[in-house]
Amino acid sequence: MKNTIGQNVSLTIFGESHGDSIGAVIDGLAPGIAVDEEFIKNQLSLRRPVGSISTPRVEADNFRIISGVFEGRTTGTPICIVIPNENTKSKDYSEIRSKARPGHADFTAYEKYHGFEDYRGGGHFSGRITAGIVAAGAIAISALNKKGIYIGTHISRCANISDASFTDYKTDILSLNKKQFAVIDDTVAEKMQNEIVKAKSEGDSVGGVLETAIIGMPQGVGEPWFDSIESLLSHALFGIPAIKGVEFGGGFALADMLGSGANDSFYVDGDTVKTKTNNNGGINGGITNGMPVIFRCAVKPTPTISKTQQTVDFIKTENTELIAGGRHDPCIVHRARVVVDSITALVLCDILSGRFGTDWLAD
Amino acid sequence: MKNTIGQNVSLTIFGESHGDSIGAVIDGLAPGIAVDEEFIKNQLSLRRPVGSISTPRVEADNFRIISGVFEGRTTGTPICIVIPNENTKSKDYSEIRSKARPGHADFTAYEKYHGFEDYRGGGHFSGRITAGIVAAGAIAISALNKKGIYIGTHISRCANISDASFTDYKTDILSLNKKQFAVIDDTVAEKMQNEIVKAKSEGDSVGGVLETAIIGMPQGVGEPWFDSIESLLSHALFGIPAIKGVEFGGGFALADMLGSGANDSFYVDGDTVKTKTNNNGGINGGITNGMPVIFRCAVKPTPTISKTQQTVDFIKTENTELIAGGRHDPCIVHRARVVVDSITALVLCDILSGRFGTDWLAD
Amino acid sequence: MKNTIGQNVSLTIFGESHGDSIGAVIDGLAPGIAVDEEFIKNQLSLRRPVGSISTPRVEADNFRIISGVFEGRTTGTPICIVIPNENTKSKDYSEIRSKARPGHADFTAYEKYHGFEDYRGGGHFSGRITAGIVAAGAIAISALNKKGIYIGTHISRCANISDASFTDYKTDILSLNKKQFAVIDDTVAEKMQNEIVKAKSEGDSVGGVLETAIIGMPQGVGEPWFDSIESLLSHALFGIPAIKGVEFGGGFALADMLGSGANDSFYVDGDTVKTKTNNNGGINGGITNGMPVIFRCAVKPTPTISKTQQTVDFIKTENTELIAGGRHDPCIVHRARVVVDSITALVLCDILSGRFGTDWLAD
Amino acid sequence: MKNTIGQNVSLTIFGESHGDSIGAVIDGLAPGIAVDEEFIKNQLSLRRPVGSISTPRVEADNFRIISGVFEGRTTGTPICIVIPNENTKSKDYSEIRSKARPGHADFTAYEKYHGFEDYRGGGHFSGRITAGIVAAGAIAISALNKKGIYIGTHISRCANISDASFTDYKTDILSLNKKQFAVIDDTVAEKMQNEIVKAKSEGDSVGGVLETAIIGMPQGVGEPWFDSIESLLSHALFGIPAIKGVEFGGGFALADMLGSGANDSFYVDGDTVKTKTNNNGGINGGITNGMPVIFRCAVKPTPTISKTQQTVDFIKTENTELIAGGRHDPCIVHRARVVVDSITALVLCDILSGRFGTDWLAD
Repeated sequence: MKNTIGQNVSLTIFGESHGDSIGAVIDGLAPGIAVDEEFIKNQLSLRRPVGSISTPRVEADNFRIISGVFEGRTTGTPICIVIPNENTKSKDYSEIRSKARPGHADFTAYEKYHGFEDYRGGGHFSGRITAGIVAAGAIAISALNKKGIYIGTHISRCANISDASFTDYKTDILSLNKKQFAVIDDTVAEKMQNEIVKAKSEGDSVGGVLETAIIGMPQGVGEPWFDSIESLLSHALFGIPAIKGVEFGGGFALADMLGSGANDSFYVDGDTVKTKTNNNGGINGGITNGMPVIFRCAVKPTPTISKTQQTVDFIKTENTELIAGGRHDPCIVHRARVVVDSITALVLCDILSGRFGTDWLAD
Repeated sequence: MKNTIGQNVSLTIFGESHGDSIGAVIDGLAPGIAVDEEFIKNQLSLRRPVGSISTPRVEADNFRIISGVFEGRTTGTPICIVIPNENTKSKDYSEIRSKARPGHADFTAYEKYHGFEDYRGGGHFSGRITAGIVAAGAIAISALNKKGIYIGTHISRCANISDASFTDYKTDILSLNKKQFAVIDDTVAEKMQNEIVKAKSEGDSVGGVLETAIIGMPQGVGEPWFDSIESLLSHALFGIPAIKGVEFGGGFALADMLGSGANDSFYVDGDTVKTKTNNNGGINGGITNGMPVIFRCAVKPTPTISKTQQTVDFIKTENTELIAGGRHDPCIVHRARVVVDSITALVLCDILSGRFGTDWLAD
Repeated sequence: MKNTIGQNVSLTIFGESHGDSIGAVIDGLAPGIAVDEEFIKNQLSLRRPVGSISTPRVEADNFRIISGVFEGRTTGTPICIVIPNENTKSKDYSEIRSKARPGHADFTAYEKYHGFEDYRGGGHFSGRITAGIVAAGAIAISALNKKGIYIGTHISRCANISDASFTDYKTDILSLNKKQFAVIDDTVAEKMQNEIVKAKSEGDSVGGVLETAIIGMPQGVGEPWFDSIESLLSHALFGIPAIKGVEFGGGFALADMLGSGANDSFYVDGDTVKTKTNNNGGINGGITNGMPVIFRCAVKPTPTISKTQQTVDFIKTENTELIAGGRHDPCIVHRARVVVDSITALVLCDILSGRFGTDWLAD
Repeated sequence: MKNTIGQNVSLTIFGESHGDSIGAVIDGLAPGIAVDEEFIKNQLSLRRPVGSISTPRVEADNFRIISGVFEGRTTGTPICIVIPNENTKSKDYSEIRSKARPGHADFTAYEKYHGFEDYRGGGHFSGRITAGIVAAGAIAISALNKKGIYIGTHISRCANISDASFTDYKTDILSLNKKQFAVIDDTVAEKMQNEIVKAKSEGDSVGGVLETAIIGMPQGVGEPWFDSIESLLSHALFGIPAIKGVEFGGGFALADMLGSGANDSFYVDGDTVKTKTNNNGGINGGITNGMPVIFRCAVKPTPTISKTQQTVDFIKTENTELIAGGRHDPCIVHRARVVVDSITALVLCDILSGRFGTDWLAD
């Protein structure tokens, strides 16, 4: 379905970096969910570039909800959120129309759309489009929180520096969700940011790893095979352009373990079944087992850099050089965090509404 | 869609480990594709356990194509393939019905299906079900090969031992596809197998990493956002129960690189645009750029082991111990290889049929 | 999705008239639903040709459930039902391979599948395929009945003779579901059958109208716009090859009414809201209002007749004549009845499972 | 997918009658299709109420295309069209919030959405939402016309008065598409309108039948069973709230015919296969045969009338009376015409893009 994801609760996104507006339509959310515009604003602010570690293009993100919300609550019908593009400088990009920026989709978009694509600022491929996901995700997050389900993501690694791990999930999640630069161990924030600034000063960029925890998921949710929790989450997460890897629980580290070490022993805690370790990331056979759902996303370094790069003119089919214009970020890991939270929330709403019915998320 | 994946070409799987049969339905494949039953048999043989490194349960996999093939070619209507279960020993499992095998889906299946699940041998969660994927995938692979698209997977890592990397893709792929134990550097095969046997002798199991290359994909195929090549492939791959991580191109290693190192410079080779490196794994913005599509899957160690494990009786909700019965594999990495190839082929047929129309894959 | 319908509960059908087997896969049905093989047999018997008013090809319909049912109940995983073709006479058809039977899909199948279609006996387009729908539908009907939802269809019109209307829905439905030739007023059965026999004796065929009532549907189920009850039911019903019209409630007769006559006045009956008339067929704005859901399907006369017909040889692209061979039915209205009930039941299971969650249909 | 329809080309609609805006998102249309805003305006004008036969609420329909169109052509990415609601009088409706208007969805919406629905003017159930379909459909119509595919709909019957039938399809279609009140025989227009005015003067409303012809469809398009042309079109058409019946070709009249009369004899015309009659409406076995695709939709009389009606207060669950307020139409048949054309065009774009690939519709 291209720009639509989800079956029972679906998200459709639209827009181009330098077009009139970007936005999203969410369909299938239960009626009666309180929609807190301040919370949406706040979530959008977590995605916005800030200070010396980000692009100077700052969008106000003056979103408008133009359908599906009535008297402050979801109606159950499609919610369309529109976010105008305001701070666009199109001429930055028009001169380099046919130069393929390495790591970007300029060339593949040209091949796919035969030159009809809106190439300005990456067009529909721009990270700008994720603002629509964040606005939509804010409503999903609110709904999940009411049901005791919380999502938190931290910058597990950035510019070769590692953050601490989750210790107390709920405390950590609540704390992370208030931070602009989401690390568990605040002492690493400055180190990471120094590296980002350093990369920027060298005309370069850095990547990182985001680690997400979901707590409060009911047991027995998900499907074997193609609608496994892993399948549905990874499908959505790999929709975010910079993400090139997704792993659950122990992930790639499991490949080097023995079964006796990787298996999570079950035990009884009161009347609840739990596991001692969580190498399976809260998922067995595609289905939640009640432990925190844990996954990590590899975020590649921002492809837009200021160094001169070898590339091609794909209209003339000849070699050329590129000195990046446009405004860009030396790092998007910290900004991608809330996008991961948002798309995760929308996927969970879809899964839970399918499992328990469309009213389950209602207040 | 639970046990169905794909939009233009879809795969539906069914069956339980100890039920009557397992199987698959493929719908939407172009008419006129030659169906080579010998090739299907051969693909199934690559999935079958062999020798000392596998389970003693060996199924003949006497598949029958009961619809959708006429006079040796696909008709364009649904192809149903049925594979009877023959070598089943149900009583191995019935005694431990309510003991959750760590790392398995026994407990989550019970939570989800309220005790109505066919629990014998893992039921619908069994790796046995992948035989249907392999049989279906064989037809997809044949169709792709005719169009010059080849898929090959090697055991990039197993039991902490690494294989060599791809050097000449086409040669390596053709060679790998003939091997029962698919490594590029044959000298590592014995080392890996020795480790597998060692783990088995200790009642334990090992995991690994599978690396896949796809060559011959046309440029400009895929979608931005939710139908990215990464999204569709990972959705399918994470449907395979043991896979807990998927990464494309540089994957998680990209997180530690600088943008100047991670970006793949474009250059012109004749009238074709190529990239010097392939850190993006042949995909920019979700769309193929013509370079080999590269991904890796983390395969966790087989959860069934012979060591005594702490677990719960989930019907009595009490702690207990488990000494595994049943027949099992000390390693499934080498067997999972052809499953990865197969599901990949089906996803590619879906994507290409959507992009170029339902007749594109026809001979 | 071609041969798959339904989102939360899905049905996939496969097979050809003269192939090995036909069948169906149902996915997403709640676990724990009792599966009564006698009831399935009985439903299949209602579809089978009988006596002088039907084709002499009689299939035993020895179905086998090869997955998804364990100890007599649904497991919640895909149920595959296979029905072998036993009484096939392929040579009847091979001689007329390239002659387009008027009213049939021979020509359009050839255009679509480029000659690779299994043309024997209509191949995948044969009414034979509906046996799979009936077997699958039987399980859905059982599940709905447990929830107090009943479906009944009568031959409202056949060969220009009309049946009586529903009077007491539940009584009528229970009575109809036992009849091989489903009319409310038994005195019209003989008249209709006489006309069928007469048409047969003249080498001709007749059509009719099936009227269906669904009682017990909860209020507030369905969606505005594209997942309206009418949309989902008509989508499925028009999948049955002979159906060329579907109308709900007053249907086409509403076109000639005034609003004051067509509107169904609401009133309170105890604590339930009802309507005095039911011109909207139990559906307002795509959503159930609690009144019986009523629809009618126009069934065209069987296209296979014994009269000489003008047609073309579509391989030679020249005019020719056709004298029908093969075995056929002078009327399929009475046989189509149980197919309508079955596909309706599957659509309702899909809708209700989406609305109330996957466990709602569980016993 | 609730408010989304289509698989390869999809349409998502949103909005409420008295909300901020209504609109639509089209995804999957080929890149490079010329977007003529004047044509969109004109199509919207055909949907707008006019003169004495319509509601006095007239919306300017000042649509804005906020994404997916660049330099006058489709980019291939999602096209979002927003149409502000301008002429809303919300207080007309608030007084009667809990009175179920007969024939409307007030009661069913309340049951479904538990009172959180935007009830003003029918909210999301309002015919107002169809303006989004018309705007989106205009782009689809333009694309189809470039490929030689034309759609035309006439008021086959209204207020018990019948229009003439199609004679020369192309001429009739081109002529109809320019008319505000689309009849083939202009002499019946006045008669129909007189009846509409008469009904209005009596506080009543009338219904009718719309007949649609599609010419230029390639042969061999469509699928057997659940993606039949009839299935996909009826699914979309029954999404339009007032439509309660859909029939193809001879439709319900076929039920009373003999097979020898209903069958369409094939013949060769040059190198093209055609049929002498078109009782199957251009579709055999769900697949186009190259003849015009013909269908008719029954449009019920507008449920909003000025007469006093018996109804219930569904919050108090008690009987009450309703004297309609709000602005309304004594007939919507003539306005629904362009909605039928539009949704038909979108469905055809979806089917054709799936069959021939995403670039087929490109200029």
